[in-house]
Amino acid sequence: MTNIGIVGSHGRMGVALAAAISEAGQHHHGIDKGGNVAKLAERSDVLVDFSSPAALEATLDACIAAKKPIVIGTTGLEERHHYLIDDAAKDIAVLQTGNTSLGVTLLAHLVREAAARLDADWDIEVLEMHHRAKVDAPSGTALLLGQAAAEGRGIDLDRCSERGRDGLTGARCHGKIGFASLRGGTIAGDHDVIFAGPEEMLTLSHRAENRMIFARGAVKAALWLIHQKRGRYRMAEVLGLS
Amino acid sequence: MTNIGIVGSHGRMGVALAAAISEAGQHHHGIDKGGNVAKLAERSDVLVDFSSPAALEATLDACIAAKKPIVIGTTGLEERHHYLIDDAAKDIAVLQTGNTSLGVTLLAHLVREAAARLDADWDIEVLEMHHRAKVDAPSGTALLLGQAAAEGRGIDLDRCSERGRDGLTGARCHGKIGFASLRGGTIAGDHDVIFAGPEEMLTLSHRAENRMIFARGAVKAALWLIHQKRGRYRMAEVLGLS
Amino acid sequence: MTNIGIVGSHGRMGVALAAAISEAGQHHHGIDKGGNVAKLAERSDVLVDFSSPAALEATLDACIAAKKPIVIGTTGLEERHHYLIDDAAKDIAVLQTGNTSLGVTLLAHLVREAAARLDADWDIEVLEMHHRAKVDAPSGTALLLGQAAAEGRGIDLDRCSERGRDGLTGARCHGKIGFASLRGGTIAGDHDVIFAGPEEMLTLSHRAENRMIFARGAVKAALWLIHQKRGRYRMAEVLGLS
Amino acid sequence: MTNIGIVGSHGRMGVALAAAISEAGQHHHGIDKGGNVAKLAERSDVLVDFSSPAALEATLDACIAAKKPIVIGTTGLEERHHYLIDDAAKDIAVLQTGNTSLGVTLLAHLVREAAARLDADWDIEVLEMHHRAKVDAPSGTALLLGQAAAEGRGIDLDRCSERGRDGLTGARCHGKIGFASLRGGTIAGDHDVIFAGPEEMLTLSHRAENRMIFARGAVKAALWLIHQKRGRYRMAEVLGLS
Repeated sequence: MTNIGIVGSHGRMGVALAAAISEAGQHHHGIDKGGNVAKLAERSDVLVDFSSPAALEATLDACIAAKKPIVIGTTGLEERHHYLIDDAAKDIAVLQTGNTSLGVTLLAHLVREAAARLDADWDIEVLEMHHRAKVDAPSGTALLLGQAAAEGRGIDLDRCSERGRDGLTGARCHGKIGFASLRGGTIAGDHDVIFAGPEEMLTLSHRAENRMIFARGAVKAALWLIHQKRGRYRMAEVLGLS
Repeated sequence: MTNIGIVGSHGRMGVALAAAISEAGQHHHGIDKGGNVAKLAERSDVLVDFSSPAALEATLDACIAAKKPIVIGTTGLEERHHYLIDDAAKDIAVLQTGNTSLGVTLLAHLVREAAARLDADWDIEVLEMHHRAKVDAPSGTALLLGQAAAEGRGIDLDRCSERGRDGLTGARCHGKIGFASLRGGTIAGDHDVIFAGPEEMLTLSHRAENRMIFARGAVKAALWLIHQKRGRYRMAEVLGLS
Repeated sequence: MTNIGIVGSHGRMGVALAAAISEAGQHHHGIDKGGNVAKLAERSDVLVDFSSPAALEATLDACIAAKKPIVIGTTGLEERHHYLIDDAAKDIAVLQTGNTSLGVTLLAHLVREAAARLDADWDIEVLEMHHRAKVDAPSGTALLLGQAAAEGRGIDLDRCSERGRDGLTGARCHGKIGFASLRGGTIAGDHDVIFAGPEEMLTLSHRAENRMIFARGAVKAALWLIHQKRGRYRMAEVLGLS
Repeated sequence: MTNIGIVGSHGRMGVALAAAISEAGQHHHGIDKGGNVAKLAERSDVLVDFSSPAALEATLDACIAAKKPIVIGTTGLEERHHYLIDDAAKDIAVLQTGNTSLGVTLLAHLVREAAARLDADWDIEVLEMHHRAKVDAPSGTALLLGQAAAEGRGIDLDRCSERGRDGLTGARCHGKIGFASLRGGTIAGDHDVIFAGPEEMLTLSHRAENRMIFARGAVKAALWLIHQKRGRYRMAEVLGLS
């Protein structure tokens, strides 16, 4: 039996993770804000973190010290967090992803493919809708999908994003990837990637019915990560999609 | 035969208006940026304006001087433009609308009804998608639909709008009406009004296949407006929906 | 505390009902196929039936004998079942509905309104998607929405339905209401009512995230029905929508 | 300049083809029902046929006699028509396709890929909507997409189709590919391929804004086909997608 440590065990995803770990016949324990992450890392075979960017540095330090792999599903990461992850990956196995579901992982793969085949005359837009409690926009998954589109098209997402359109925006910039976010109700997570071409439109969509699919995917990733050597991994590798 | 004057005759809507006026067996002439609007108003029985907010004041002055009614479909209007319209409506018949189609006018009616029936536990979001050349966001129609929702719920849209979500937004504010805009391709105009409640969601949508529906509706409105006395009118009145 | 009797307590909806009744602080007991419905009716203040059409006659007889009201959410009812319900309503309070959610009940109201406003040039289509285990098509809710559209338009649904399109169907019959059913995965219930007009389209949609919304609505209806005299009722009356 | 012969020149697609051929700077002439197809074939460099299955045999015979390639976009073809096409392809170049647009051709490619990656726990459904005048269901494009899904999954579409669901259908058969058709208004063509898995759903969609995209794609295919030797071709080959 594997011991899986949950960082952020009282949050929505923490509760779902506990359920998914039990469902998978494994053992879990967790900490919440202010908990002792070093101790958690020592006692676990692998950690799963869906908490907040602010806690990431301390969590990674604890994993490195205890030589334990970690799955990071936290959203709202900035550039410096990615540097921290790259650094940690020199010592331990780290899988960071904006989304742990099978469907979204496949969707990203299809988006990359479509973006590679269509020329810049097809405008790319990423739309997402989540429940009213979500605090960041666009969602980590939307950014992951935008990144897949940018890779397919061979462009740099940071330079090509068009976010938060409002007011006199002017015409759409050629070649940009647009993002829009809806919030409301209890929606677990809807994502659309739209390729809008001349008089036709291609849309690739994913709908999560509840957040258990993310928890189950994260557990699957954690159990897979235990067997990997140090380095940084993607969800597609867990699912054999790349 | 009625003479309909087109303000902004070279724009996308101007061209569509000319076609719709011919289709309706009426006569049209028009001006573009820098044209003589006073002369246009004198020679026309009614004006239709889908040009830009900047030109509105001069256009209204010309209509008042010539005592001619006007249909205003220009989007991107600000508060001061609405004051100008209210002023003009003391002298002439003015119909201002964010959307001249039958479907959207009915949609606004249904949105008002739904918003009146559902309590604030149902979050309201307005989503729109338009072609890449559109320069303002949200669309005039999206604002019109948001206004209908605000009226149904008995709140003030200006105080309750949540626009251009991006970054660390925090949780959704209770009772707000959110707006999001997509741009791409040649989409004539898609609008969704979403009511996201506890574990269920109601969505009221409209899709325009091309901009002729707006042109035809504007012509219908113009022919109706000729027979009205001075005052400010809504599209719903043309269609007998209110 | 109210005793609510569940007919079909082992089915998906039976389990959800038991949870919703507990959530509402009420008491429940139930029977499954072959159970003693007469005894259940005697011991209950009100019954809720989401089982199968085959059992309906015996269930209604038991309710009449015990003078107990009943909420019927069973789908796949035929004309003769509706006659049985009308007969029972002479003795007891009966609420029969294809859908017990607030959102769908409001949707039906909006569909009736839209159908009343749009002429027959706007084709009406009803689309639904449910999980793979559903055995009847179209769903009871789809038929309920089609009925609302037919009422709004002033036509007879039985004579105007176009179902199961396949093969060389010929052009769509003017004025018909079409139905289409999708099945797959674990979808709790999606419904779209489409009004497809000349070059524009209006769509009114509902999405249920899980079946608890139906169970909660049924419990709400049951608690309301206890206070009504004999007669046949609609879900809209429970929610004050008509 | 290439002479393109249109079989069915008075139909909706015939008119669109004539426009697209002119747009492409090429020459066209055509025949309608009862026209002399042998003469048309002789005078053309390549034929494009969007007429009816009934006329196909005579049209193919004329092409073989005149040694001219042909693009066939006619829908509602049966098995025997495909045998006729295979036979003709021994003598001339034939491209038969359910859809000539770039977007749909790419969509089929993505559907094949997704179906190959997802196991049979993900139910596949194909939904289409077209204007009220369409006479066959499902659309040729829907069948083309179902075929792509079947190929990806390694199954035989003829044995696995579930069409025209209506009444007491029983639970969905494991591994089947379902089809549903909506008809109404002036919709040029919407297609969704849905992969409905356990608590999540992936949808790949295409929307045609008007039928010019099909006409343009058919012209592109015709100009490409002139340079091919005898044999049967797919749209994906024209676009370099396979």
